[in-house]
Amino acid sequence: MDFNAVYHEANDNYCYPFNNDELIINIKTGYDIKSVNIIIGDPFANGILGGGEGWEGESEPVVFKKRLKNQLWWTTTVKPEYKRLKYYFELITDDEKWYYFEDGFLSDEQKNLAGRSRQCFVFPWMNPCDIATTPAWVNDTVWYQIFPDRFCNGDHTLDPENVLPWRSHKEPVLNEECFGGDLQGIITKLDYLKDLGITGIYMTPINESYSNHKYDTVDYTKIDPLFGDETVFKELVTRAHERGVRVMLDGVFNHSGYYFAPWQDVLSKGPSSEYFDWFMINTWPLSEGGGHAQKGEYYTFAFFDDMPKLNTNNPVVRKYFIDICAKWVEDYGVDGIRLDVANEVSHQFCKELRTRLKAINPDIYILGEIWHNALPWLRGDEFDAVMNYPLGESIKDFWIDKSLTNEDFEYTVNRCYTMYMQQTNDVLFNLLDSHDTKRLRSDVKSLDAYFAQLAVLFTMPGSPCIYYGTEIAMEGSYDPDCRRCMPWDAIEKGEYADRINIIRELIDLRKQEPLLKSRNFHFPNEYADHPRVIQFQKVGWSDNYIEIIINTSEEDVEIAQKGEVLFARHYIDTALLCNGILIRRIKE
Amino acid sequence: MDFNAVYHEANDNYCYPFNNDELIINIKTGYDIKSVNIIIGDPFANGILGGGEGWEGESEPVVFKKRLKNQLWWTTTVKPEYKRLKYYFELITDDEKWYYFEDGFLSDEQKNLAGRSRQCFVFPWMNPCDIATTPAWVNDTVWYQIFPDRFCNGDHTLDPENVLPWRSHKEPVLNEECFGGDLQGIITKLDYLKDLGITGIYMTPINESYSNHKYDTVDYTKIDPLFGDETVFKELVTRAHERGVRVMLDGVFNHSGYYFAPWQDVLSKGPSSEYFDWFMINTWPLSEGGGHAQKGEYYTFAFFDDMPKLNTNNPVVRKYFIDICAKWVEDYGVDGIRLDVANEVSHQFCKELRTRLKAINPDIYILGEIWHNALPWLRGDEFDAVMNYPLGESIKDFWIDKSLTNEDFEYTVNRCYTMYMQQTNDVLFNLLDSHDTKRLRSDVKSLDAYFAQLAVLFTMPGSPCIYYGTEIAMEGSYDPDCRRCMPWDAIEKGEYADRINIIRELIDLRKQEPLLKSRNFHFPNEYADHPRVIQFQKVGWSDNYIEIIINTSEEDVEIAQKGEVLFARHYIDTALLCNGILIRRIKE
Repeated sequence: MDFNAVYHEANDNYCYPFNNDELIINIKTGYDIKSVNIIIGDPFANGILGGGEGWEGESEPVVFKKRLKNQLWWTTTVKPEYKRLKYYFELITDDEKWYYFEDGFLSDEQKNLAGRSRQCFVFPWMNPCDIATTPAWVNDTVWYQIFPDRFCNGDHTLDPENVLPWRSHKEPVLNEECFGGDLQGIITKLDYLKDLGITGIYMTPINESYSNHKYDTVDYTKIDPLFGDETVFKELVTRAHERGVRVMLDGVFNHSGYYFAPWQDVLSKGPSSEYFDWFMINTWPLSEGGGHAQKGEYYTFAFFDDMPKLNTNNPVVRKYFIDICAKWVEDYGVDGIRLDVANEVSHQFCKELRTRLKAINPDIYILGEIWHNALPWLRGDEFDAVMNYPLGESIKDFWIDKSLTNEDFEYTVNRCYTMYMQQTNDVLFNLLDSHDTKRLRSDVKSLDAYFAQLAVLFTMPGSPCIYYGTEIAMEGSYDPDCRRCMPWDAIEKGEYADRINIIRELIDLRKQEPLLKSRNFHFPNEYADHPRVIQFQKVGWSDNYIEIIINTSEEDVEIAQKGEVLFARHYIDTALLCNGILIRRIKE
Repeated sequence: MDFNAVYHEANDNYCYPFNNDELIINIKTGYDIKSVNIIIGDPFANGILGGGEGWEGESEPVVFKKRLKNQLWWTTTVKPEYKRLKYYFELITDDEKWYYFEDGFLSDEQKNLAGRSRQCFVFPWMNPCDIATTPAWVNDTVWYQIFPDRFCNGDHTLDPENVLPWRSHKEPVLNEECFGGDLQGIITKLDYLKDLGITGIYMTPINESYSNHKYDTVDYTKIDPLFGDETVFKELVTRAHERGVRVMLDGVFNHSGYYFAPWQDVLSKGPSSEYFDWFMINTWPLSEGGGHAQKGEYYTFAFFDDMPKLNTNNPVVRKYFIDICAKWVEDYGVDGIRLDVANEVSHQFCKELRTRLKAINPDIYILGEIWHNALPWLRGDEFDAVMNYPLGESIKDFWIDKSLTNEDFEYTVNRCYTMYMQQTNDVLFNLLDSHDTKRLRSDVKSLDAYFAQLAVLFTMPGSPCIYYGTEIAMEGSYDPDCRRCMPWDAIEKGEYADRINIIRELIDLRKQEPLLKSRNFHFPNEYADHPRVIQFQKVGWSDNYIEIIINTSEEDVEIAQKGEVLFARHYIDTALLCNGILIRRIKE
């Protein structure tokens, strides 16, 4: 048996309550394992502790499995009658059988040796207050990310003197250029977004700041005057809600801007400033000239001297920023908060933030910007979800690295959906690009490949987000070039109608077909001979399932006609052309 | 390459700050890996996010490794200059080289493919408030667990009418039998304990309860009158501290006793009781007769109707019991609290408890009774440590299962010390038996094997605990028979002097030789031909190391003479007799 392939722990993504009654249990094995049984029971079924109670559980087969690279991921759901569970596994290959306990593998003989311990796995108690819950509405939401300065200028009275004519930028657009986009502009375009099918907008920061991206906040209590004021922001929230569109703000609590009053106070008073411990300062006075961050004199975001890191180890700082967020939820009525550089603020901050915000609105969506495996933030007491960059990167990699096969695609997608709890998977913020990356279109030369990747995004579990302009396949390289102005004139003239229609269709389909949002999917692997054809099926409890087939290769591949075609590109009769998409409903 | 054997995640026991400066990183591989390099660097060394920054780290070899069953555990320590780290691994076999990223294994070619993502591991920021710290004094402590009713009767004025003459019990001693042991008795024996070398006592519960074990509390605010009162308990703490002996109480917050006033209130008033939500009641009214727990009418400890589970999901309940603990720390001055059935109370309770108690006394030791892998409670925001039953079981199993080899022993011990953070390992509460298990002596027919197992216990990292009577090799089967009266008459007559001396010697040695407490040890595997000979070496930064050799077999094994013998049983010249122990210091 491939012992090294076997992995389980009685916590995290391997064993967790899905709700008050159901415990999900997953175990990873090698491909040599032909069947898995789980032996379960109440820990006290035969008396109390000590190992001498002769505990024997009941054996149940584990039926469902996913394929990972080199490993199988087996999954089952148990309903412990008394909210507690003791268990171990029986692993069966073609010619071997082993019992898997917390301390390793036992043979039949060892398992039954008198006096020998059986270190079973235990999920001791399903306490409701520890069970991770996520807001149900998020899985139904299709997000649209807006970079306000470049989305729409709706109120010219707010424009500063140095405002540039809309779309007068060259490539790349620069950080220093201001185009006067504002909150009124977003309000103006709410009907456009609603028509597109959008049900949530996520705005990059809107608090006062002297940059166009506003990730260097000056005043967290104030809407940036170039964008509007509290009145117009509240109107935006109201108008959005009227249209069934949720609103998410961006909270930048990892660092402040240079002109944030406490930082200015520190710069002028040094260690005698009451705000000295609001930051992470190692030496004082600062050296002459710049490069303070590089010299380690104080910590910053990246190495930007003018973005000093906020010290969320300090309870006073935590309270200050949690109060800010509480106001957004309570007064502004926002539906979600995205935390910028969320992996660098203290866990303590994230925990206190969650406790406070969920007490105000249990349905608030707390989203962390974390690019890597974010399990430590997703245990139920910090964030609801993270920006799912690993999924986005993995989708894009498939098109970039032509040596990858549909099996590799299966493995990588399955990896992304076995990292976290299912209730987390339901609300992951799925994206292919953002203000922090190149635009998808810039990496993808063919529109066919472009829409194919979006088709994957819109059929994955979680909550898809498109970056403003995605619907017209807008281009743009790395930050800041990915932040160009929306070409409203051309859009209104209908120049992009075909592109917009495709996105609208994909969004509509996701809304009409709940299976597309579902976390239950598998890869039937019927196109093993065509390694660049992706095929997966979304299944539920009905007799319907939805099949997604995407041919990413330059060759025609024959696809048997069946079911009802819901969406297709380059699909003609029984042939799926190169870079085509087919989404269809099949009745069993 | 054995891909399935490779495992790392950028959190928990695989990657964590050991202190404000040092990050410990561990990776598991198969035995086919001949060397491991870690490529590390600042995440922002080449600019900000987006993947286009062309980040290249610096390669460092990972030198230290431990052997696990089928796998190697490689470990290194990094000091990130700016408190943040990005990294991946290079794994080298005899004929292959692979790069290991968060999303899998890449070849040289894939790693360098233009546009392809590199999903590096990231430890984003070492925030001091999130870094796990444990009380330094615990590693220096040798614990003695006392079951008060059976330890020593020091104040006969407290004896109830039904008290039995000391040691008048038959085998097994019964739960219903009261022998009048009390706090004054413990005070009386403090000098005995000090002479034995004990530096910490852990008492099973002392709050008011009508049972002898007192795990069914009636009044948490009161010392049981059979044991004494607050005055005598405070005196116990004072007298213990005068002798350099710490005191740990037992907190039973998973369930109360039947006569706990809130439960009585519920029983009389039902759902209209203000305490109804203090418990976990599913149906009301209760059925006639007993078996309420089994019927699921309310939840209990195990299936004991008279031990109703406390609802630590309820914030009011959490506050009530945290207040109790705060009083123990603040008023009584106790040094530690052991939490009974700690795995079943809510994590929320454990987190709030820690925050409150550490604010009163940062050096308080919070110990959970958890028998299985307790990682979810040991992330730095709940317990300092747990009762290390997995280690104890593994040690005992080696003597029970004669098919196990010294390599198996190495693997199992290494498993126990790679499950948690090093700062946790330093303060694990190591034990071979307790009031909840058979006594060690009952499983071990030979005194040689008995002391050999204790010799292992006293040379392991963590904090060893012996159960009262262990020093005289007291017998007793499962609970309640493991709770017999201490035979003070015989002890005072010197009948057990030889046994007590051995324990005293082992304790003294541990105190004199800091290496014995150290977490740094390895198994040189010089006795591969003698599979039942355990050998391990405790190392530090000096040129000394300490070697422990234990021959558990019935055959003589030759041991080369070297170094300075610190402790020996059955060691004569160059031969180590069956079931012998040798502890010696060797200078390199």
